[in-house]
Amino acid sequence: MSEHDAIEVITAKRDGGELTDSQIDWVVDAYTRGVVRDEQMSALAMAILLNGMTRHEIARWTAAMIASGERMDLSAISRPTADKHSTGGVGDKITLPLAPLVAACGVAVPQLSGRGLGHTGGTLDKLESISGWRASLTNEEFSAQLEKVGAVICAAGAGLAPADKKLYALRDVTGTVEAIPLIASSIMSKKIAEGSGSLVLDVKVGTGAFMKDLARARELAETMVALGTDAGMPTVALLTDMSTPLGLTAGNALEVRESVEVLAGGGPADVVELTLALATEMLAGAGRGDVDPAAVLASGAAMDSWNAMIRAQGGDPGAPLPVARETHVVAAPSSGVLTRLDAMAVGLASWRLGAGRAALGDPVQDGAGVVWHARPGDDVTGGQPLLTLHTDEPERFDRALEALSGGFDIDAAGTAYEPFPLVIERLS
Amino acid sequence: MSEHDAIEVITAKRDGGELTDSQIDWVVDAYTRGVVRDEQMSALAMAILLNGMTRHEIARWTAAMIASGERMDLSAISRPTADKHSTGGVGDKITLPLAPLVAACGVAVPQLSGRGLGHTGGTLDKLESISGWRASLTNEEFSAQLEKVGAVICAAGAGLAPADKKLYALRDVTGTVEAIPLIASSIMSKKIAEGSGSLVLDVKVGTGAFMKDLARARELAETMVALGTDAGMPTVALLTDMSTPLGLTAGNALEVRESVEVLAGGGPADVVELTLALATEMLAGAGRGDVDPAAVLASGAAMDSWNAMIRAQGGDPGAPLPVARETHVVAAPSSGVLTRLDAMAVGLASWRLGAGRAALGDPVQDGAGVVWHARPGDDVTGGQPLLTLHTDEPERFDRALEALSGGFDIDAAGTAYEPFPLVIERLS
Repeated sequence: MSEHDAIEVITAKRDGGELTDSQIDWVVDAYTRGVVRDEQMSALAMAILLNGMTRHEIARWTAAMIASGERMDLSAISRPTADKHSTGGVGDKITLPLAPLVAACGVAVPQLSGRGLGHTGGTLDKLESISGWRASLTNEEFSAQLEKVGAVICAAGAGLAPADKKLYALRDVTGTVEAIPLIASSIMSKKIAEGSGSLVLDVKVGTGAFMKDLARARELAETMVALGTDAGMPTVALLTDMSTPLGLTAGNALEVRESVEVLAGGGPADVVELTLALATEMLAGAGRGDVDPAAVLASGAAMDSWNAMIRAQGGDPGAPLPVARETHVVAAPSSGVLTRLDAMAVGLASWRLGAGRAALGDPVQDGAGVVWHARPGDDVTGGQPLLTLHTDEPERFDRALEALSGGFDIDAAGTAYEPFPLVIERLS
Repeated sequence: MSEHDAIEVITAKRDGGELTDSQIDWVVDAYTRGVVRDEQMSALAMAILLNGMTRHEIARWTAAMIASGERMDLSAISRPTADKHSTGGVGDKITLPLAPLVAACGVAVPQLSGRGLGHTGGTLDKLESISGWRASLTNEEFSAQLEKVGAVICAAGAGLAPADKKLYALRDVTGTVEAIPLIASSIMSKKIAEGSGSLVLDVKVGTGAFMKDLARARELAETMVALGTDAGMPTVALLTDMSTPLGLTAGNALEVRESVEVLAGGGPADVVELTLALATEMLAGAGRGDVDPAAVLASGAAMDSWNAMIRAQGGDPGAPLPVARETHVVAAPSSGVLTRLDAMAVGLASWRLGAGRAALGDPVQDGAGVVWHARPGDDVTGGQPLLTLHTDEPERFDRALEALSGGFDIDAAGTAYEPFPLVIERLS
């Protein structure tokens, strides 16, 4: 007979109570060990979703998930460390230029990343479009590269927060993904276990983001900032727009190409802006607020870090990137100002073209995706190419075009467009 | 790809929506077939518990559970039929005298019953303390006995509402038993599938009942009355007190003995009162409101029906009933009026003495249980026997005594006792 039983914990939360530390420690551990069953944890997750959790409960839940696995120790790294996490968006390739840029500024970036699922791409999938690059490193390789190159982007090992891994898979099939306490503790348990000295969160809000409205995005951001800070890891969050996709490309190799453009001193203005905004926060969090990332980017040092980072993981930064076998151009139906380009429509189209996957383990196409030739606020001329769709399998075009139907607006008078900020709010 | 998916149904209810007929039909059927998984159904059950269901949703859910199995056809029975269901209480042996009494009044009683779980006893467990009696009948035996004897109390076959069977087992381990829509549909799906012409519900309220407060008991009763009536089965509910246990005994053979006393014209006043109240409702529901059950009980005809009913299922109504090997007497600690005897305390004690089970399939002791020698309102003298505990295993006495600690009050002045009604309310 254990100290607690699952029904006691479920009914306490079901009836609106606050779980005790001991209940939380027990239920997370017992679930990881298989003593608490999936059907019990899903009922608890639904009760948490509907009845909420206090800040204290969320912190304890996060600590229990961290305790379910190993914690990385980066204390031997000679430079300060800073990590970044984005809640996911369309065309969000920011990690690619950001990690080498921050490394070039003297701060080490240990960036454990994931694969794409659904309409948002995954950082590892993007990098795997580079010939030879590999996502898996041993702990020793990770530490050595972090010390030598200053930036590592690789797959998280299975040892970090195994409770979260199991719980996330369960939430995914039981309609309980959307619980803010569970989202916050899922992200932060992994980020705290990774052992970075500081963290910057990019919390996306808008149609293409997980959080569609500002109030919920702010609640999630506040919760995560408090969790990080309370765990001794200085944490800042930027709320950033994801109603429009970032840059001009969505898709694996397409986004690598755009990232390299940014590192070369070009690239779309919004990608540069967000990269510099996040770099500034990461440098400040690591105690290097004196360094100007724009100057370092302009110097070419970030590109040098990128090349070293890619090579250290077996990749050839000079190799030509894969290109999709087929393209299809969507012409602008009329002339005027592009007043809206919907991030979800573009993300869905890119997914359907083969850049994303429906289930973990599915393959993705390196070359597939969407390129758009104008951003909201730009003038377009009827008949000009507005979007180009890329895929190896032309039978995918129809469903991608369906996804894009209604996904943009062109205003002939040009009066319907109001510029909106990319960085909406900063929380610390 | 099916018409619906589980996540769509779960999130609709999670977000406070009303499920469509087609969603309900699909999810109940898909769960029965194993397409919707346990962890998905438990999340849905928690969402139903916390967000509720409309009357229409409950009716549709009930219909879907009925459709998951077979329906009994009692149309060949020459007499009108009436069924009774109690939500369960301590010392609730009413089915035993009631079924033969109503049969003796000319109305057939098809009574599919269950086993006890936790602190409430099961009708089948009680009858199995009679030598030779068997709970399982084929459909043919059931119909033949119902026609010939007029009363059958037996186990429900596995074919009735299999969706409910599966869902009930799941709710039991996921903290989702207490959802009124799910309780009501669970009970009524089986009762409607049993095919009785009318139904009387005994909805218990009080410490020893599943529903501790009147408002929730009334909500459950109203929901079930509406479900039965809408399904074409005239249904009436009595809300009855379960703060005090019924009669003077709790335990299998002990309750059979008390039931036979009632059939013989004696027995505790409250058991007689409730038996007659429910018989009156059943007769009225079956169109035989002209018959006076008290007169039939006094005539001995109900005892004849009892003997025939027990014999038809292999039992010997004249055989001595099992007696526990050990007894322990609890003396009244002081003199005065017994102002409270808590149903839950007595039920728990009886369970711990061996009369009940913790899990389906566990054995029960025929002779175990509790006998109380006074009821609230009675004078007691300090030192007189107040309760007698019965068990085959004397090591069980300690935990039973623990359960009874604080379970009764004796008031020396006798002013603290206010009589309260057994039948609290009637709903139709």
